[in-house]
Amino acid sequence: MDSRRAESFSDGVFAVAITVLVFNLLPIADKTGFLTVTSRGGHLGLVHYWPAYLAYVVSFLIIGIMWLNHHLMFAQVSTVDRPVLVLNLILLMGIVALPFPTALVADHLTGSAGSHGQATAAVVTYGLLMIAISISFGATWVYISRHLDDLAGRQPVRPSRMATLRFVAGNAGYVAGTLIALASPVAALVIFGLLAVYYMFEHLPEPASDAQAASRDED
Amino acid sequence: MDSRRAESFSDGVFAVAITVLVFNLLPIADKTGFLTVTSRGGHLGLVHYWPAYLAYVVSFLIIGIMWLNHHLMFAQVSTVDRPVLVLNLILLMGIVALPFPTALVADHLTGSAGSHGQATAAVVTYGLLMIAISISFGATWVYISRHLDDLAGRQPVRPSRMATLRFVAGNAGYVAGTLIALASPVAALVIFGLLAVYYMFEHLPEPASDAQAASRDED
Amino acid sequence: MDSRRAESFSDGVFAVAITVLVFNLLPIADKTGFLTVTSRGGHLGLVHYWPAYLAYVVSFLIIGIMWLNHHLMFAQVSTVDRPVLVLNLILLMGIVALPFPTALVADHLTGSAGSHGQATAAVVTYGLLMIAISISFGATWVYISRHLDDLAGRQPVRPSRMATLRFVAGNAGYVAGTLIALASPVAALVIFGLLAVYYMFEHLPEPASDAQAASRDED
Amino acid sequence: MDSRRAESFSDGVFAVAITVLVFNLLPIADKTGFLTVTSRGGHLGLVHYWPAYLAYVVSFLIIGIMWLNHHLMFAQVSTVDRPVLVLNLILLMGIVALPFPTALVADHLTGSAGSHGQATAAVVTYGLLMIAISISFGATWVYISRHLDDLAGRQPVRPSRMATLRFVAGNAGYVAGTLIALASPVAALVIFGLLAVYYMFEHLPEPASDAQAASRDED
Repeated sequence: MDSRRAESFSDGVFAVAITVLVFNLLPIADKTGFLTVTSRGGHLGLVHYWPAYLAYVVSFLIIGIMWLNHHLMFAQVSTVDRPVLVLNLILLMGIVALPFPTALVADHLTGSAGSHGQATAAVVTYGLLMIAISISFGATWVYISRHLDDLAGRQPVRPSRMATLRFVAGNAGYVAGTLIALASPVAALVIFGLLAVYYMFEHLPEPASDAQAASRDED
Repeated sequence: MDSRRAESFSDGVFAVAITVLVFNLLPIADKTGFLTVTSRGGHLGLVHYWPAYLAYVVSFLIIGIMWLNHHLMFAQVSTVDRPVLVLNLILLMGIVALPFPTALVADHLTGSAGSHGQATAAVVTYGLLMIAISISFGATWVYISRHLDDLAGRQPVRPSRMATLRFVAGNAGYVAGTLIALASPVAALVIFGLLAVYYMFEHLPEPASDAQAASRDED
Repeated sequence: MDSRRAESFSDGVFAVAITVLVFNLLPIADKTGFLTVTSRGGHLGLVHYWPAYLAYVVSFLIIGIMWLNHHLMFAQVSTVDRPVLVLNLILLMGIVALPFPTALVADHLTGSAGSHGQATAAVVTYGLLMIAISISFGATWVYISRHLDDLAGRQPVRPSRMATLRFVAGNAGYVAGTLIALASPVAALVIFGLLAVYYMFEHLPEPASDAQAASRDED
Repeated sequence: MDSRRAESFSDGVFAVAITVLVFNLLPIADKTGFLTVTSRGGHLGLVHYWPAYLAYVVSFLIIGIMWLNHHLMFAQVSTVDRPVLVLNLILLMGIVALPFPTALVADHLTGSAGSHGQATAAVVTYGLLMIAISISFGATWVYISRHLDDLAGRQPVRPSRMATLRFVAGNAGYVAGTLIALASPVAALVIFGLLAVYYMFEHLPEPASDAQAASRDED
């Protein structure tokens, strides 16, 4: 199949999944606790829900930057075969599910019922899903980089083994974050956010731009 | 109408519908039963909701692979006429509704109020919708394959009668699954998931790639 | 602005709005009344919510066929100016709001609290929004058809005054339906569905296909 | 990266975010207060929720017109670098969050629990998010306009300093609106709506159309 169709469908799923994150904020508007603590100042009621905002920002960065790397990954190829489609579908299944542990974290990181055990369980669930997403992302990338001759229409820009290694190795951060969640759920959530920033810079190799490719074709 | 516009709109609907499935997971974060069973271990509270996760995976696979086959179906043609648009709209009406029986299954497969009768009714509803989707998918495919001369711009890759037969016949699996739901709702749900995997491999014939077609055009 | 960008954005809004309709079905899964009437048979609990299904089908047809006509309208032009963008934004504002009166109808057409007055108010609200949508659709079409020389890149296929008249006049059906809702809300809802089917056939003139246009350009 | 991919992803996010606004209307259908005030006339129950409709219209206009300006901004460039992607992601993070303060306003502008303090806090929150969105929009625009030589493939249409100044200066209106919210929340909301209309006319410079650019390329 033409890789552009698969990428276009994936783009749509990423765009919807990243927007679904706001549904973890909407119920706050209905909460009876909104602005009842007027003695401490006007806005404190909303500040109380900071775990929801933190989880929103972290998950937004993760999905947004994962979209960026997903695009760079598919930019390497011009056609996709069935294994790529299956791996991509499993990857999307994880991305779409991310608002769920985001909601767990938003509801249970603190609050009246927020015992330490619940916060830990919420962030560990978040971490386990991120590990699963990372594995399926890495698997897709390893498969594509090994089949570039078949999948890339033009002469592929072969990524260095080092780049692939660094990319996949970074996933170890999610394992570390999940383990840290057992001690400090908040610290683990911050680590997940920092990992997103890490992947902003330690990303997949960018393919030659269309302009460059076109000028090369003309030689 | 240019088939690409209809396909692009359908892609958007598929992408949103597949993402809507996570809304069956979000309410779990609010459930009071979350992690209250601390005596049995930290994570057991979430495991309790396994029907929701199973339903999520099955419906995600079904919509994702149906998108794949939908794309292969539309890749056969370059224009669409009014009957195709109507059939496609009815097909999408079924796809978009799938999160509803998914929610029925997630809520009623087990649980405090989960009598066998409710689980059966939920999975039978799921199966009936899948049968309706299959019929409209098959009808769209039969119509398209019979009007390829009008709808396909280039020389069409005429699918064999055998391929069409196998494709449409596979739908019988949904009838079987729905009947099995009367005895074992869980088994029926697993069958629906396996049918999705079946359609991953027993899919519609892939049209000649753009590259091949272009080189043919140049001859 | 290039009309394709505006159309692509509109397509996305249509695709999401049509999928949002399923959110009127999802709460049924949580309703306690689900399948409690086991004495009358297994499935009767779900059948009880037929207004929700009817409203889903009617609104799905309306949005789907409005998308079709919206596409035909924008296919007439190659650029859009500011008035078209404003009119289009107002039109989309109505389309996106349609799930709201759909929810009103689903909840209040029948049911324990479903007095005749509430059902009427729900369907009248539905009808008033449809009238508003029709007016903004008609206004957009009238503006476009009067500025075809500026907006259409190629030689425009000028629609006959008769076609425009029939198209705009059909909107009177929504006024009639809204008035009928005062006597019979269910009949009004059925009329709205039939109007969607009417617009499937009495649609805007289809522009010359790309293939035709290309062959004309080559002359 | 090719700017079209980033723009297409952004378009999807805008389209979903603008449609999510209807979720602030859907709960009204469930409210028990619906049409109970039959003595005063049939429709008064729905009219009671006017803050929700006003907030819907204002936020719809804001997102819709921000999409228009976002498109004009990206139409200036043909490639995007990493800072643009990061700035754009932060901008989208604000756009996607807008349904949240919209819900705050819809629920707390009036109503049984609607003390003046709550209405003020809701609209101030709305204003603060709009200020954040405006800053990130302005930052993205300033960055792009300063790197046009690198990012624009063709000879860029260099925007005048005056245009940029007027565009960025208009953001001061959000600060004024937020301050006014302390005195009159409703007036502030109306100001936010008027600012959207202002940006409809005082928008970014439109790039040369494709047709013009093509004819220029041929010279």
